[in-house]
Amino acid sequence: MSIDESDIPALARGCAILGTGGGGDVRTGSLAAVRAIRAYGEVPLVELADLPGDALVVPLSGIGAPTVGHEMIHGEDEPERVAEEVERLFGRPPSAIMSSEIGGSNGVAPVAWAARLGVPLLDADGMGRAFPEVQMVSMYVAGLPADLVIMSDIVGNVVTIRPIDGLWSERLARAVCVAAGSHALMADYVLTAGAARGAVIEGTVTRALEIGRATEGAADPLGALRDRLGAVRLITGKLTDVDRRTTGGFVRGAATIEGAGDERGRRLTVELQNENLVAVEDGAVRAMVPDLITIVDTETAAAVQTESLRYGQRVSVLAWPCDPLWRTPKGLETAGPRAFGYDLDYVPVEELTAHG
Amino acid sequence: MSIDESDIPALARGCAILGTGGGGDVRTGSLAAVRAIRAYGEVPLVELADLPGDALVVPLSGIGAPTVGHEMIHGEDEPERVAEEVERLFGRPPSAIMSSEIGGSNGVAPVAWAARLGVPLLDADGMGRAFPEVQMVSMYVAGLPADLVIMSDIVGNVVTIRPIDGLWSERLARAVCVAAGSHALMADYVLTAGAARGAVIEGTVTRALEIGRATEGAADPLGALRDRLGAVRLITGKLTDVDRRTTGGFVRGAATIEGAGDERGRRLTVELQNENLVAVEDGAVRAMVPDLITIVDTETAAAVQTESLRYGQRVSVLAWPCDPLWRTPKGLETAGPRAFGYDLDYVPVEELTAHG
Repeated sequence: MSIDESDIPALARGCAILGTGGGGDVRTGSLAAVRAIRAYGEVPLVELADLPGDALVVPLSGIGAPTVGHEMIHGEDEPERVAEEVERLFGRPPSAIMSSEIGGSNGVAPVAWAARLGVPLLDADGMGRAFPEVQMVSMYVAGLPADLVIMSDIVGNVVTIRPIDGLWSERLARAVCVAAGSHALMADYVLTAGAARGAVIEGTVTRALEIGRATEGAADPLGALRDRLGAVRLITGKLTDVDRRTTGGFVRGAATIEGAGDERGRRLTVELQNENLVAVEDGAVRAMVPDLITIVDTETAAAVQTESLRYGQRVSVLAWPCDPLWRTPKGLETAGPRAFGYDLDYVPVEELTAHG
Repeated sequence: MSIDESDIPALARGCAILGTGGGGDVRTGSLAAVRAIRAYGEVPLVELADLPGDALVVPLSGIGAPTVGHEMIHGEDEPERVAEEVERLFGRPPSAIMSSEIGGSNGVAPVAWAARLGVPLLDADGMGRAFPEVQMVSMYVAGLPADLVIMSDIVGNVVTIRPIDGLWSERLARAVCVAAGSHALMADYVLTAGAARGAVIEGTVTRALEIGRATEGAADPLGALRDRLGAVRLITGKLTDVDRRTTGGFVRGAATIEGAGDERGRRLTVELQNENLVAVEDGAVRAMVPDLITIVDTETAAAVQTESLRYGQRVSVLAWPCDPLWRTPKGLETAGPRAFGYDLDYVPVEELTAHG
C-alpha cells in the first residue's frame, strides 16, 4: 500500500495518541507530509520482509524540545543531507527510511522525508510510542551497537557521531541539538534490513493509522479509542494544574486532573519529561513508563500533547500496555521508571489498574 | 631534522611564550611528547615543500579549557581514532600532522601525536600563536572552506562535523567538547599539502625551538627573549590582582601588574580569554590581539600561563607583532579586537608603543 494525502489526518491522530503527550506537535509533521506528498507523490509503505537483507534502512527522527519543533518547517533539505552522508559512509543510498519514534510528529514527518528522498517508508519504528532520549530505541534494547548517529540541522550543518555506547550517543547528540538551536534531524543507527529483523517494532505505521481511524465518525470516540488501544481510563475530569519548564532541550513538568461527575473528589497527577511518564492518585501509582499514558480530550478523544495542556480543559487519561520488548530486563533498564529517575519497580498497567 | 627528547624542554618554553598565557599547560604536552618519543622514537620535522601536493596534512589540537587539559594524559589513542576517521573519509592515511596552534600545549603535544602515528610533523601551524576559538586559524583566513572537523574524546567517542562555516564549526565543536568533559582532540580541516601552501604559517616549530633556546644559559634571560621575539617590554613589577573564571569551556578574566623600581606607580591590566587579549595602562591600550602579549617571570623569562597566575609574582609583560596574515582585513575580522567583543580599532603594537 501507499500513504497519500488523505491518510495524513488519521495517521497524525494515531501518532499523537501514541506520543503520550510528546514526540513533537503532530501538526508540524502533518504539514510537512502533506506538502511533500503534493510535491513528490505518495509514499509506498513496505514491510521488512519485502526488503532484501542488505537494503539500508535509515531510522530518522527530529530531536529537540517539542515546543520549538515547528522550526522544522523552515529547513527542508535535512533528509537529503543525511542521505548524502549515508551514501558517503556506506557507498550506497538508503533503500527505505523508518520512523525512529512513531509517537508524535516523528511518526508523521517520515512520510515527508521518504517522499523527498523518493524511497519507501518501512511499516515499523524503534519505540512503538515516543521517548525523550536517543538511546531509548528497540535497536539498543535488541543489543545492536549504538555506533553511528548522523545529524543534520536547519542551517545545513551535518554532524556524524560514532559513540562508544548509547548513553554517549544521547549525551553528544543532545549537546549538538542544543547548539544547533534545539532542533535537528537525526539518523540514529543505519541498519541493513537483515539486522533490523527482531530489532525494530513492526507494523506500527499501520497501527497508528488504525488508531486514528477508530474515532472517525464514532458515536463514542473515547470508548472507541479505548477499545482499539486496549486501554483503561484512569480518570475523566478537568485540568487544574499544569507545570511545564523547558530546560536543556527537554520539557519537564506535571499535569493534575480533578475528577468530574461520578469521579468528583478524585485527583490524578501525570508527571512528564516530554512524554507522560507516571500517573499517580492518592500517592499510588496507577500507570508508569514504559506503559503508555495519554491525556485526551474527553469529547473528541483527540490526544492533548504536552505543549497544548491548558488549565480548565475537559480531559480523560488513558493508559495501556507497551510493546513486550520494553518489559524485558534490558527494555526496563533502558526506559523503565528508574531510567527516568523514579525509585519505582515496574509493575504492568494491567496489574496496577486491576488492583486499583 | 628530527625532534628528540632533548628538544622538548626548549620547544615547550618557546610554545609557552607563543601561547600568550593560553593554549593549555605546556607541561601536559611535554610529558606526552617525552613518553611518546621514548616509546615510538624521534619525530621527523618536515617542511611543506618536502611533501607531495596530494599528501594529507592533518592539523591537530586539543580543544577545551586549559585548566582541565591535564586529563589528556589519561586518553592516549585519540590520534589513532582521528587518523582512522581520516582514512575512512579520504581513502588514505595522513602523511603528516601539523599543530593547529603552536602556542601552549598544542605546540608540543603534536610531537606525541606524530610519534604515535609514525608520521612526520610539519614545521608549520595554523596560528603562529594561540587563540581560543576553532575558526581562528590561518586556513580560515586564507579562505579554505571550514567544511570538516573530526573530534576524538577521552572515552573513545569520535564526532565528525561538516559545518556550513567557521562560526558553526566553533559553535558545534565547543558544544561537543563541553559534553565530552571539556577536552577533546580535534582535527580542524584536513588539507592536502598543495592546499596548505599559503594557508598555514610555516616555520613555527623551528621558531618555537629558537625562542626556547634563546634564554638557555643567558646572563639576561629577559633581554635575550625580548631580542629574539622583537618584543617591547610593557612593564616589570608585581602581580597584584588576578580574576579568573572558567565558563562554557573558556577561562576569562584579567591580571593586574603594578610597576616596581623605576616603574613604581604604574599599573598595567591584561585582559584574557584563555589567551591574553588586551593590555591597558591608564585607560590607554598598549597592545591588543592579534599581536602577542605574554606575561613572563622577570628573573627566568619563562612564560606564566593563565592558569599559573598568582598574587605577588614578579613578572614582566612583553608584546610583539603577530604574523602579517592576522593584520589583513580577513585576519582582523577573524581574530582582531572586535572578534573578542572589544570596541577597538586595531592598531599594531609597534605604533602603540612608539607613541606610548
